[in-house]
Amino acid sequence: MGQLEEAQQKFLTELFEAGLLIDCGVPGVYGRSAVFESVIERFDRYITRIGAPDNPTLMRFPPVLNRKHFETSGYLKNMPQLAGTIHSFEGDQKAHVALIQALEAGNDWSAQQHMTDVVLTPAGCYPVYPALKGVQPAQGKLVDVFSYCFRHEPSIDPARMQMFRMREYVRIGQPDDVRNWRSGWLDRGLAMMQALGLDVTIALANDPFFGRTGKMLAASQREQELKYELVVPITSSESPTAVLSFNYHQELFGGLYGIQIEGNAAHTGCVGFGMERVALALLKTHGLDPNSWPAHVNEALGS
Amino acid sequence: MGQLEEAQQKFLTELFEAGLLIDCGVPGVYGRSAVFESVIERFDRYITRIGAPDNPTLMRFPPVLNRKHFETSGYLKNMPQLAGTIHSFEGDQKAHVALIQALEAGNDWSAQQHMTDVVLTPAGCYPVYPALKGVQPAQGKLVDVFSYCFRHEPSIDPARMQMFRMREYVRIGQPDDVRNWRSGWLDRGLAMMQALGLDVTIALANDPFFGRTGKMLAASQREQELKYELVVPITSSESPTAVLSFNYHQELFGGLYGIQIEGNAAHTGCVGFGMERVALALLKTHGLDPNSWPAHVNEALGS
Repeated sequence: MGQLEEAQQKFLTELFEAGLLIDCGVPGVYGRSAVFESVIERFDRYITRIGAPDNPTLMRFPPVLNRKHFETSGYLKNMPQLAGTIHSFEGDQKAHVALIQALEAGNDWSAQQHMTDVVLTPAGCYPVYPALKGVQPAQGKLVDVFSYCFRHEPSIDPARMQMFRMREYVRIGQPDDVRNWRSGWLDRGLAMMQALGLDVTIALANDPFFGRTGKMLAASQREQELKYELVVPITSSESPTAVLSFNYHQELFGGLYGIQIEGNAAHTGCVGFGMERVALALLKTHGLDPNSWPAHVNEALGS
Repeated sequence: MGQLEEAQQKFLTELFEAGLLIDCGVPGVYGRSAVFESVIERFDRYITRIGAPDNPTLMRFPPVLNRKHFETSGYLKNMPQLAGTIHSFEGDQKAHVALIQALEAGNDWSAQQHMTDVVLTPAGCYPVYPALKGVQPAQGKLVDVFSYCFRHEPSIDPARMQMFRMREYVRIGQPDDVRNWRSGWLDRGLAMMQALGLDVTIALANDPFFGRTGKMLAASQREQELKYELVVPITSSESPTAVLSFNYHQELFGGLYGIQIEGNAAHTGCVGFGMERVALALLKTHGLDPNSWPAHVNEALGS
């Protein structure tokens, strides 16, 4: 175990011992205590206060997507290793006997499971685009979403959960409107993290694209400045953790899902708030008891 | 399409047209509007007000379970058709090419997906039992959980979603304590539904057990009065929908997960609130605009 992994394991153990997270026996899958949830809820309301003047449309989706919509998204080309498909038993009595026998013998019983029409949501904004298919007004749209998200990346890093919550604002509009909106949120996000007393830095970033072609996709994404992140040290100052991300998708989703503005494929962008990561950054920076945090931090976070 | 299915389809269409639910192209998977979410949140706070005097311990889990814990639960013996396992791509560059080729040819690409260590949560209380392994105090425990749950039962009935939220209180204790607690919640739940102006009835019930042996399990569950439901007409008066359920598991989960009280396997019980179902019952009974509901209903539900 390297120095970074040791620091991650140490913080995870502290969170278990303080009762803030509950061990479920799988890396990256944890229960949350009342105190942990209260930090998440306070940060959620903080986001709402900052975002409210823009008058966003609230939409809430369950943490699954229509598999056909997901196949269209390109996610399986770019990040297949992170996706989660949902499989169910669709057999008869005889197939059920085979399932139970495999289970009781401790064998792999997945042969009895078949892929269903739904997959797990990898990021809060994915269900929004298919829902906006059609012609949108010239000034575009602004949508507020919040969802549990799944990424298959088991890790002892408490800040790299397999199931975590993401609040997002999603902007659909013309190119300049989306770019300016993203740039405005970069300033707002920075101010929020500073008000919370976090040691925040802006970083040009890229998605964890898969394989050989992935390297090129990552380089292109950085070159075009399509993704920025705000990073904060949680278990390491050398490898700080992304807590907010600011993405400009150009016309990708507008084209794939048929969202039109003034005769063109709409451009889209989003700002995503990693809810657990912000909570963990606060707990690591200011201590495991929110009642003992500096007054100015509790004041900024709100009740 | 029978009369019941017609009524279900009609109500679903009304909910889409009113913008309360958002069509995702898969039966039982819907987005929710701000108005719909506000009904869910108000009902959630109503439950908290009624349950607070018992001083429950709040735990929140993501909507997935450790697969090993799930295998232990017996769910795959009893209701395999409803479970959802999560599968991911774990291959190399060559396997990825095969995945993309299958996808582009419109073929089944599930051969590239492998079962992971997690499954979807079928009911809010499942992650609680493994978390309580060990010796519990003589007076037992009371836990408050809330989670999205998955059941693989695609349906046009808006009250039978594949992904829905369940708030639960879970009582772990000695047999009489659990039985009396459940009986107390049956009274409380009935009073709550009446205060909300819903046409509620108590019903002896059983789980949807699979296959031939399932018939016997269902009969035995009813005979021992292990499950009661509160039912309310949503799309049919003849087939009302279960909105709350009250379950006594005897020593089943205490035995399976090693929860001990005074040297014996703990008994457990739970009361579950079907959040979307209560919201739909209110919308169907009082109309699609909560601002126009009777004053006494809005007063009971709270802000």
